[in-house]
Amino acid sequence: MINSPLLKANPSLYSFLPMFYMVWADDVLTPSEIKNIQSLINKQSWLKNEERELLLSYLNPAKPPSPNEIKSWLTEIKRISQELSPEMKTSLVDIGNKLAELNSIGRDEVAFQNAQQPLRDIEDALGIISRESAFHLASNDRAATEAETLASQKTFSVDKLRAILDGDQAALIAKVKTLLSDPEFKYLDTGDLTEYREKVLHWCKILASQGYGNRAYPKEFGGADDMEGYFTIMETLSYHDLSMVIKFGVQFGLFGMSIYFLGTQKHHKKYLADAGTLNLPGCFAMTETGHGSNVKGIETTATYDHKSGKITIHTPNPKAQKEYIGNAALHGQMATVFAKLIIDGTDYGVSAFVVPLRDKKSNMHTGVTIKDCGRKMGLNGVDNGVIRFDNVVIPKESMLDRFASIDENGQFASPISSDNRRFFTMLGTLVGGRIGIPRSGLSATKSGLTIAIRYADGRKQFGPEGGSEVPILNYRTHQRRLMPLLSNAYALHFALQYLTQRFLKRTEEDMQEIEALAAGLKSWATWNATASLQECREALGGKGYLAENRIAALKNDTEIYTTFEGDNTVLMQLVAKSRLSEFRQEFGHMNLFGMLNYVTDQAKVSIQEMNPITIRNTDKEHLLDSEFHLAAFRYREKSILASSAKRLKHYIDQGMDSFDAFNQCQYHLVMVGHAYIERIILEQFQQKIEEVTDEGSKHILTKLCQLFALSQIEKNKGWYLEADYMAGAKTKAIRQLVNTLCLEVRQNAVALTDAFAIPDALLAAPIAVRKP
Amino acid sequence: MINSPLLKANPSLYSFLPMFYMVWADDVLTPSEIKNIQSLINKQSWLKNEERELLLSYLNPAKPPSPNEIKSWLTEIKRISQELSPEMKTSLVDIGNKLAELNSIGRDEVAFQNAQQPLRDIEDALGIISRESAFHLASNDRAATEAETLASQKTFSVDKLRAILDGDQAALIAKVKTLLSDPEFKYLDTGDLTEYREKVLHWCKILASQGYGNRAYPKEFGGADDMEGYFTIMETLSYHDLSMVIKFGVQFGLFGMSIYFLGTQKHHKKYLADAGTLNLPGCFAMTETGHGSNVKGIETTATYDHKSGKITIHTPNPKAQKEYIGNAALHGQMATVFAKLIIDGTDYGVSAFVVPLRDKKSNMHTGVTIKDCGRKMGLNGVDNGVIRFDNVVIPKESMLDRFASIDENGQFASPISSDNRRFFTMLGTLVGGRIGIPRSGLSATKSGLTIAIRYADGRKQFGPEGGSEVPILNYRTHQRRLMPLLSNAYALHFALQYLTQRFLKRTEEDMQEIEALAAGLKSWATWNATASLQECREALGGKGYLAENRIAALKNDTEIYTTFEGDNTVLMQLVAKSRLSEFRQEFGHMNLFGMLNYVTDQAKVSIQEMNPITIRNTDKEHLLDSEFHLAAFRYREKSILASSAKRLKHYIDQGMDSFDAFNQCQYHLVMVGHAYIERIILEQFQQKIEEVTDEGSKHILTKLCQLFALSQIEKNKGWYLEADYMAGAKTKAIRQLVNTLCLEVRQNAVALTDAFAIPDALLAAPIAVRKP
Repeated sequence: MINSPLLKANPSLYSFLPMFYMVWADDVLTPSEIKNIQSLINKQSWLKNEERELLLSYLNPAKPPSPNEIKSWLTEIKRISQELSPEMKTSLVDIGNKLAELNSIGRDEVAFQNAQQPLRDIEDALGIISRESAFHLASNDRAATEAETLASQKTFSVDKLRAILDGDQAALIAKVKTLLSDPEFKYLDTGDLTEYREKVLHWCKILASQGYGNRAYPKEFGGADDMEGYFTIMETLSYHDLSMVIKFGVQFGLFGMSIYFLGTQKHHKKYLADAGTLNLPGCFAMTETGHGSNVKGIETTATYDHKSGKITIHTPNPKAQKEYIGNAALHGQMATVFAKLIIDGTDYGVSAFVVPLRDKKSNMHTGVTIKDCGRKMGLNGVDNGVIRFDNVVIPKESMLDRFASIDENGQFASPISSDNRRFFTMLGTLVGGRIGIPRSGLSATKSGLTIAIRYADGRKQFGPEGGSEVPILNYRTHQRRLMPLLSNAYALHFALQYLTQRFLKRTEEDMQEIEALAAGLKSWATWNATASLQECREALGGKGYLAENRIAALKNDTEIYTTFEGDNTVLMQLVAKSRLSEFRQEFGHMNLFGMLNYVTDQAKVSIQEMNPITIRNTDKEHLLDSEFHLAAFRYREKSILASSAKRLKHYIDQGMDSFDAFNQCQYHLVMVGHAYIERIILEQFQQKIEEVTDEGSKHILTKLCQLFALSQIEKNKGWYLEADYMAGAKTKAIRQLVNTLCLEVRQNAVALTDAFAIPDALLAAPIAVRKP
Repeated sequence: MINSPLLKANPSLYSFLPMFYMVWADDVLTPSEIKNIQSLINKQSWLKNEERELLLSYLNPAKPPSPNEIKSWLTEIKRISQELSPEMKTSLVDIGNKLAELNSIGRDEVAFQNAQQPLRDIEDALGIISRESAFHLASNDRAATEAETLASQKTFSVDKLRAILDGDQAALIAKVKTLLSDPEFKYLDTGDLTEYREKVLHWCKILASQGYGNRAYPKEFGGADDMEGYFTIMETLSYHDLSMVIKFGVQFGLFGMSIYFLGTQKHHKKYLADAGTLNLPGCFAMTETGHGSNVKGIETTATYDHKSGKITIHTPNPKAQKEYIGNAALHGQMATVFAKLIIDGTDYGVSAFVVPLRDKKSNMHTGVTIKDCGRKMGLNGVDNGVIRFDNVVIPKESMLDRFASIDENGQFASPISSDNRRFFTMLGTLVGGRIGIPRSGLSATKSGLTIAIRYADGRKQFGPEGGSEVPILNYRTHQRRLMPLLSNAYALHFALQYLTQRFLKRTEEDMQEIEALAAGLKSWATWNATASLQECREALGGKGYLAENRIAALKNDTEIYTTFEGDNTVLMQLVAKSRLSEFRQEFGHMNLFGMLNYVTDQAKVSIQEMNPITIRNTDKEHLLDSEFHLAAFRYREKSILASSAKRLKHYIDQGMDSFDAFNQCQYHLVMVGHAYIERIILEQFQQKIEEVTDEGSKHILTKLCQLFALSQIEKNKGWYLEADYMAGAKTKAIRQLVNTLCLEVRQNAVALTDAFAIPDALLAAPIAVRKP
């Protein structure tokens, strides 16, 4: 077309060129649209016949222009694009006119003017697609998505933020990181179970030799009396191989701590020092094949015979075997075994016993049979096993007798009357596991986010036509995928520190609350780890699937965190029951009317937001206000709690068995647990920010906290709308604000992962190598 | 207490016994509540001093009763529980009174009556907790959760439903299942890559020898011209090891079909027969390290030299290496390579070329270097590799020249003018991959659900006090976790059959719609597979973590399905863009007012539901009505589509670059894709049910379809509430109905997985073994 003498004679024909380019360059026009353009051309009386034929010849699907020809059109258009004003770039006709003008020597002005309206009509009819094509053709500008403002920045000091995260544990954290960065801790790339398990044992021995295993034990048994340090170590180790962390936790936490908390002085003296150095590898044998969540129902028996003064540990049926027991398949020599104590035919409920499994030369103890659990989804460096006891005889002294004992007369004795209460008191002392696991899961989450965010900041894909490709973290969907998870990680960091402090400073009255807090935060944090690592894998595409980039291991190893130390769904119901117990006094003598008053009363604190104006308030200032956030979280927590109680009461009043009533409300109860934990997390995050003095850190933490709060509200918007706590206009405004906050956090995203300060040697993923 | 002479003298004291039991048996009473009971006892003037002291002695936390004593209380209470009427069982006082009555010889009636009101006051004050304790103490009834009505039933013929699922492919499906059940296909338990890869190759050779590999190829090249059969085979193989399925798909689908669809007769003759028998193992080399989603941007070059008539394939930089290429690390001898064709310095866009990699003895071809991708999260039986070409010379004839060629004069020739359009036409012919993958993912999902549901039907945990433990599938949370996913699996089954039929019967005009359908269903189905297998793993607890139960493999192998054959997030945007193109004619000349009219117009079909009564209609009949479901899905689809278009127009009108405008709306566009696909799935499910004649099947499919529809609406309730399409009362009623439907489907759940008819040998999980 460009070389046609007709075009030279009448440059007005150039006005059609961009539209023709669009017709052939993309596949977006339907045959009927092409027909429209044809009929329009036919109507143009100012065109000469041969001109019309030329134009129409370019609209014949059966005879497309050659690839080289349309390439030449594009070259022509691009050549003049710098001559276009910004407004002209939005119109194919304007571009065509400019072409016509620049190629014109003396054009037929009347014909040109006549052509204008019909051309604009076509363009209008094509709408958006036409505008988009015009941009693609004419734009040499950089799109905002590409622009510098989105490039990674940092508005705070990484070192100062890191200091806030580490707190007074900074020195210990640094020490552990240095050790783990030693070549001795180089990751193993193997599918061989034997090799992997030996390596993990070897690593644990090094850690023990550094005094990390017995850190929490009393000084008289070689420890440092430093429970806080023990948690710090667990958390920091979790930037490394998680099989090592779990093996470490089984040995020094579950095995050692069960002896420490459930045993008495004689057991401490006998076992604790060796447990703390790994001279005595041990197991924690509670879960059975038939009883995991309902661990009170375990069936292993410990039968006391007063004549011999011996206890016989026995597995009465295959479902009573101890299953998934870490350290059991290969290395464990001793186990804390939970079993029902039977004296003279009476069942005194579950107690714990120290039972030998194998000797130092790995010869099995008489009556003990152990089956290897084999390959697992993850944690393959841990040797889990299934243990069967066939009348294994142990001395009476092997009963861990802090909460229950057998006296000299062979009678059962306990300071706690109820079997039930005694059992839960025993379990309560082991709550530390529900602090260590979520902290470990959070470290894995931080590793995953660091890898995914660094990659997304550098990985470029797609871009505006003619511009360069754009880092994928500049895309809204990618920000939406990763930024709220980054804010969750920060929020959880402070919440888990709060939980740890509550545990360290516990009093007996606090215990019920701390247990609920630990159960709930364990569940929330481990579900969040699973969700975060899933998102990281997908956000990394194929790179996330390669073992070398570590997401596979992080994801598969933490997968079981939602199950062990208590199934999350079951734990959340425990949390809810604990919360409900707060209600029972107010509840007892309440009829429906009283209940409604009560619920309204609960809402009183939030009365301001419940007025029609606040419900619809979409001011940015209001939506970003921390008081609004906390009030919304609290309102939800209290309302769900109250409505669950109301429901339960309703079913029970109807004569339903309480077991059934709880089952009816189960779904609701799990929500009670979530709402409670989310309020705690927000509250602690806000309190922490109050304490921060460094302005840069305070500013970015505030953004993260706002993103955490609003993305949670957005997640629960169905509830808020159902409850009439917010109107649709408000939830829509929140969605937009989440977009904005994602963008703002994105600008600091790489620096925010830098503040996690995970050593490159531990991160190890080739795609996450820092740019020099 | 029971043995006290005071109690014998005044049996009215028995009235206190259940309350005391409660105080000591559980940990739920606070010190202030105990104080209340104490003060109440102190006020009872009818008590003798020594009686009062006896009672108070049982409320001293410092001096608890012995474990044996409270055991004796429980025995006493249980002994009389059959004497209680149902109403009495709700009250601790009633139980106490009955105890008093049964132990009474001649009681002091006045004292007894005096005690009644104060006792009832305490009970009221204790509220729910008291009621619950009473149940636990008194109830020997079975709770409804335990009852037979929840036990697995079936209300339909498994064989008939199975026949509906299999359709006219039943014979082929049965044949493939029989082959896979052969001992030769026994699963491998190994972490050794070499062993695993060789086994998978061996399996693929057996499949090829049975004529399954070349099923879709023309008969003249050894095939059966049966594309439908090929998809059926892929789907059925996916009940087995997924590495085998992917290796099979790479060889016979990606490699073979690319030659078939992109090449011409000369290529078919030369390669197709050998590709179909696996005599010529091949690869599909499209993705590069630097370009995955934006595959149009690949950088590998194919430079034609007219003098020699040769083409040189070259990797210009490390990011241009072909990455993740299946079959490349070990077995592939030939590859379909995508590269930019350069002739005389002009870039003619992406074409495909057949390039040798290694010979039959595994000697590498000159200039070809391949690196092993190593261990991956899953699919470790597939040998993925990274390929680098260092000026590899191939004859001109190796260009797959259906859509583009080089003529005798060395000039580029193509029936499609635009490079862009030609590229997407090429890709369009390969859309079959986006049908095979979701069908494979669905089979894996069915395996996971079968394992999780069978286990949950048999696994018992917890139960009412004194009753037996309850199958975990009787719990509402467990039903909520698995039943909607079961309904999704059925819904997807029919949707993917529809997609397959559309593809088999495609015309050129259909292609854009079919491509959007395939992209969207691929994304929806593979995300659903990931979510389903995640839920199965968690629902199975520790059992789900053991490799022997296969969830680990199913989950990790399908994990990458959301990425390959196109990243889901990117694909959903393509779907949205395709949907938007429908709008452009209506859109062009519309101002905001016109747009609002338009959106209202879109809603016209649903005008009936938008009236205030329908918005609040919570009648069960209405909520279960298939027309209501489809109208709600359609309304959502149209509204989101319209609002996305409105937004895009708004940004572009403001002068925003279209690239930025699309990025602003990206989150919304992904929702457009979801809403469209969900409507398609529902529509197809409903249509299929219309056709079913067997009443039993029709009834259960209707339940599943209702559950699918309502659980999707529940998931999106935030949107429906924001849009004022439903009021809170209605979404709450839907939540309850989802509970009911979960329960109803649960009763048929095992039978519904039986209808998938996955052979036990393929399922293989020990926990999913059928009960005899």
